[in-house]
Amino acid sequence: MIGIGVIGLGYWGPNIVRNIADCDGAQVVAASDLRSDRLAAIAARYPGVRTTADAANLIRDPRVDAVVIATPVSTHFELAMAALEAGKHVLVEKPLASSCEQGRRLIDAAATRRLVLMVGHTFVYTGAVRKIAALVRGGELGDLYYYDSVRVNLGVFQRDVNVIWDLAVHDLSIMDHVLPMWPSAVSATGMTHVAGRHENIAYLTLFFENRLIAHIHVSWLAPVKVRRTLIGGTRRMIVYDDLEPSEKIRVYDSGITVDSDPANVYELLVRYRAGDMWAPRLDATEALATEIAHFVDCVEHGARPITDGANGLRILQLVEAASESMASRGRLVEVAAPIAAI
Amino acid sequence: MIGIGVIGLGYWGPNIVRNIADCDGAQVVAASDLRSDRLAAIAARYPGVRTTADAANLIRDPRVDAVVIATPVSTHFELAMAALEAGKHVLVEKPLASSCEQGRRLIDAAATRRLVLMVGHTFVYTGAVRKIAALVRGGELGDLYYYDSVRVNLGVFQRDVNVIWDLAVHDLSIMDHVLPMWPSAVSATGMTHVAGRHENIAYLTLFFENRLIAHIHVSWLAPVKVRRTLIGGTRRMIVYDDLEPSEKIRVYDSGITVDSDPANVYELLVRYRAGDMWAPRLDATEALATEIAHFVDCVEHGARPITDGANGLRILQLVEAASESMASRGRLVEVAAPIAAI
Amino acid sequence: MIGIGVIGLGYWGPNIVRNIADCDGAQVVAASDLRSDRLAAIAARYPGVRTTADAANLIRDPRVDAVVIATPVSTHFELAMAALEAGKHVLVEKPLASSCEQGRRLIDAAATRRLVLMVGHTFVYTGAVRKIAALVRGGELGDLYYYDSVRVNLGVFQRDVNVIWDLAVHDLSIMDHVLPMWPSAVSATGMTHVAGRHENIAYLTLFFENRLIAHIHVSWLAPVKVRRTLIGGTRRMIVYDDLEPSEKIRVYDSGITVDSDPANVYELLVRYRAGDMWAPRLDATEALATEIAHFVDCVEHGARPITDGANGLRILQLVEAASESMASRGRLVEVAAPIAAI
Amino acid sequence: MIGIGVIGLGYWGPNIVRNIADCDGAQVVAASDLRSDRLAAIAARYPGVRTTADAANLIRDPRVDAVVIATPVSTHFELAMAALEAGKHVLVEKPLASSCEQGRRLIDAAATRRLVLMVGHTFVYTGAVRKIAALVRGGELGDLYYYDSVRVNLGVFQRDVNVIWDLAVHDLSIMDHVLPMWPSAVSATGMTHVAGRHENIAYLTLFFENRLIAHIHVSWLAPVKVRRTLIGGTRRMIVYDDLEPSEKIRVYDSGITVDSDPANVYELLVRYRAGDMWAPRLDATEALATEIAHFVDCVEHGARPITDGANGLRILQLVEAASESMASRGRLVEVAAPIAAI
Repeated sequence: MIGIGVIGLGYWGPNIVRNIADCDGAQVVAASDLRSDRLAAIAARYPGVRTTADAANLIRDPRVDAVVIATPVSTHFELAMAALEAGKHVLVEKPLASSCEQGRRLIDAAATRRLVLMVGHTFVYTGAVRKIAALVRGGELGDLYYYDSVRVNLGVFQRDVNVIWDLAVHDLSIMDHVLPMWPSAVSATGMTHVAGRHENIAYLTLFFENRLIAHIHVSWLAPVKVRRTLIGGTRRMIVYDDLEPSEKIRVYDSGITVDSDPANVYELLVRYRAGDMWAPRLDATEALATEIAHFVDCVEHGARPITDGANGLRILQLVEAASESMASRGRLVEVAAPIAAI
Repeated sequence: MIGIGVIGLGYWGPNIVRNIADCDGAQVVAASDLRSDRLAAIAARYPGVRTTADAANLIRDPRVDAVVIATPVSTHFELAMAALEAGKHVLVEKPLASSCEQGRRLIDAAATRRLVLMVGHTFVYTGAVRKIAALVRGGELGDLYYYDSVRVNLGVFQRDVNVIWDLAVHDLSIMDHVLPMWPSAVSATGMTHVAGRHENIAYLTLFFENRLIAHIHVSWLAPVKVRRTLIGGTRRMIVYDDLEPSEKIRVYDSGITVDSDPANVYELLVRYRAGDMWAPRLDATEALATEIAHFVDCVEHGARPITDGANGLRILQLVEAASESMASRGRLVEVAAPIAAI
Repeated sequence: MIGIGVIGLGYWGPNIVRNIADCDGAQVVAASDLRSDRLAAIAARYPGVRTTADAANLIRDPRVDAVVIATPVSTHFELAMAALEAGKHVLVEKPLASSCEQGRRLIDAAATRRLVLMVGHTFVYTGAVRKIAALVRGGELGDLYYYDSVRVNLGVFQRDVNVIWDLAVHDLSIMDHVLPMWPSAVSATGMTHVAGRHENIAYLTLFFENRLIAHIHVSWLAPVKVRRTLIGGTRRMIVYDDLEPSEKIRVYDSGITVDSDPANVYELLVRYRAGDMWAPRLDATEALATEIAHFVDCVEHGARPITDGANGLRILQLVEAASESMASRGRLVEVAAPIAAI
Repeated sequence: MIGIGVIGLGYWGPNIVRNIADCDGAQVVAASDLRSDRLAAIAARYPGVRTTADAANLIRDPRVDAVVIATPVSTHFELAMAALEAGKHVLVEKPLASSCEQGRRLIDAAATRRLVLMVGHTFVYTGAVRKIAALVRGGELGDLYYYDSVRVNLGVFQRDVNVIWDLAVHDLSIMDHVLPMWPSAVSATGMTHVAGRHENIAYLTLFFENRLIAHIHVSWLAPVKVRRTLIGGTRRMIVYDDLEPSEKIRVYDSGITVDSDPANVYELLVRYRAGDMWAPRLDATEALATEIAHFVDCVEHGARPITDGANGLRILQLVEAASESMASRGRLVEVAAPIAAI
């Protein structure tokens, strides 16, 4: 039985606690937050859980084998590093840290101590994204043309980070999981509508070595909620609408065909074809339950998580490059090759 | 009774002929196309119309007071110039011409001869866009935050122009009509998926002097058809979905409020509010009927059209700047002030 | 080349004229209507067509081999009978006539003279309904549980007939084409909201010999347009939404399974299963073009139409039985076996 | 502080426990269920709650002031009567009991002892239904034409009751709350698709003294989930779609106008008008929280609940009448005047 301590009991933390409580092979032994009302609520519901306002205290607790961190981004690095240095496995909410530099140091710290370091890119554990990854990586779409995602709503303006750090991290982690390629450059634009704040609207274009192009649109300032991704290939195209109650993924047997023009050998004929649509039944298990079970399993067997530190670092690379491009209104920023997993 | 000659009887031309036939104060006197089957079809349906394969011949016809041009883009300039030089009023399909330089010369030619020059930005004449323009220019949205448009489908790959010239022209002309400001710079990205062809996917970001930002996504390679524009302001936000059968425009009484944080005078509090939604009833008149009637009216009274040559030229400026930026993967391209109408 | 005369040039008649004009092997030789403006419009567009206000005159015209009747329901019988007695083949708009008695006499008249008698149940010729019929009759749904259809909108209140005669005729003819069974009884309810007028809302339940049940809801008084049919069977279920632009038919691999309860041999366990969904690509040919071509083909080869007189009569039987039940607020009315085709 | 005992911890019971726990002025003191795993789950989460497999024991508990019953329908009467006889206030899940006779006896028992008897018609406490009731009863729709509701999905086949008892109870209780009139007769049809089970599809038509007509369609055997109600009046019409995430209610300024025909004084002209649509912002409070707070408030102040015993009995009257009609395939069954609240 693995003992877990949860740091951060705001919006997401209580969901983590609940899913650990429902997970075989693990139990919540301690929980920490700066606000006493949140600690009291957890204590009332889970009387066996020790609560403390002092995260360092939780980390030191010998019954704690692993720590889950669900605090504001700016604290991720310090808390995760403290936990690793105390010999504890770590699952940290997305994004992994506030910079690539921090991410690299966490990966090193975990590797040195042979500890599990996992990042909570929860969408990767949904039935929908797992199905998309199977279809794309299984070649069902043929060669890839584009990946286009929109994630907008009327949402909380974060104080300390731009909207890329908050929303685009979801799309980048899904894209990284689904696509078998790595972008070579990014051009991003955006705007802030509140003086002194970071950008609340952003548009990212990612270029790849071949003809694949990706685009991500994120905003905290839309009157309607949209969560829609289009993925096109030579053979098929996918529409992934996360707000659909039951048919989140639609696979279209549509595309273009390119032939030589019989009338002109130097010309190509481009025709389009529209075929059947198919919506596969998806696993409806709560993604966080799958994620927690995977973390517990990795801790137990010393395995490398799907969303490991290297994965978290790749997303930080893209976020940093995109933010740099956005600051200069679309200037192309090269993306270095991903730091290889140790 | 104004006599009109129609050049180009492909997809759009027959609609123009039908709408002129139904318009009081005008009649189709001649029609021209290079394909004899198209001429025969018009002759069969409209026995009073003279048909000819020779556009020059139609332009010379003394019964022709005005010429409507619905041919491929590359021929717009030559045909329109010939008609103006022959003293005929001109309505040319969008885009006005193949370059700003051509557009300028058409404007000059029309001004010199005091002839009407109009461009067929048909969306400007829809009930939906007219309502949006009235709301935005009437201040109902407050100060403007953003204009975001998506126009994608599985469509015909044009041979000679990129997708900006084909699809984004619609969005740019709607945006130009609706917004009371002019962009100062553009950053665009895109991709071609057929060797030797122009870009079939494009993303445009337009910057304005204040905090307003616009973005347009166009593609010929999407499995589903999307025609959706979001417009956000300090007071209200609009969702314009052109595929909705009856409620194309939805006005949301939603947005953000920005206050000083009482706990910290140097900080701002950003809160969002979500209110009622309202879908105004729209004029359902066919846009092309309104456009043709407006053209006839301008010819009759010597008035300047809403979508005059200067309007057509402004759109060409934006298309050229965006294509230039796209060629260098998002490099910011300044947009000059619009050439003033003479 | 078959010469056709069209009687009735209101809403639907001009569509018929256009489709005959585009049909190989047939031509419109004459057209008739009581209103001179409608005759003038046809004459202007189709100069080769003879126009007359006198339908009898058109029927007598020796160049007329077949007559298409698109007039108000109350005139169907008299016009169709006159045409048959004059030795002309007949296509009459739905419904076939104003009563079963009239329908029977038309069938007899056509049979005696070996003439084609066809009724314009146009939906039967759509790509969607043809696909549904193929799926249902091919056994893809298994045994049938139910057929449920909603056809409501804000529409024109007919003067002389209730809403069953106007709208439910569409559903009954689709149902009759799709289902391999005949109902044994009907219970219908409805209401009129305008004094002195027939019912503008109606609900029909049709019972079959086995456990199959059908229900049809029609109304001229709904704020939104709905055209949706659910068809359920033991193996699969279909949702047919005629307002969907591209995916009108969705086939769900969903249903229930019924097993013996291992804990209680006298009890059955009912479980439901939800599987993939599939939207087949449909033939998008205009239904009226297919219908006209079929009529011309039947005339040419002396074949029996899919929607022959017997089909038209079956629908009249159901409409009369439903109207009788509705008049007594749901009283069950037996439906006689369909009159066999001669 | 009011002490509450909850009987029945299946699907709905834990939600009740959670909402009482979050409600000021009340606390859960005891919970009962026949299954020990359910008791254990509650005990783990709410350590202060006494759990017992013996409902009679819970009812006797002197700390229990009020009992909430969330057990199968067949047990409602016995448990509620026992609680009332023990002097406890009662909130019983819908439907109130298994028959009108039982409902009447519960009302009498509560009245005699001056105890609160409330039925859990939860939809009545949603923001959507409260807004609809305000609009309809405030006259915004004018005179009422129709109430039409569809509630279908692929759902659990109940063992002991037909689908009217399970699903139509929701629609009938909403209708009863929203409409200011009482139906005079009902005609219902339905079908069972599993041998030995009750009807799993049902259609109810309810007639009122004036021209108002209501219809309810319920099913456990549809491939898609639908929760849609149309309400039409002389001035406006409402579409209530409970599955819409944010715009559950749409109010259409649409309808018909009836004038005398100037050409024929004995005829009426019926025209339809389509106007703006408006979607009011709704209170998004969880309905069960509002319901529990209302129950606690009624207990505290001796007030009569909105969904009191008389309300529960009215719904039973309609369910019994509809089931009787369904058994004889649509035969009209008169509905007696509602038993007046004591």
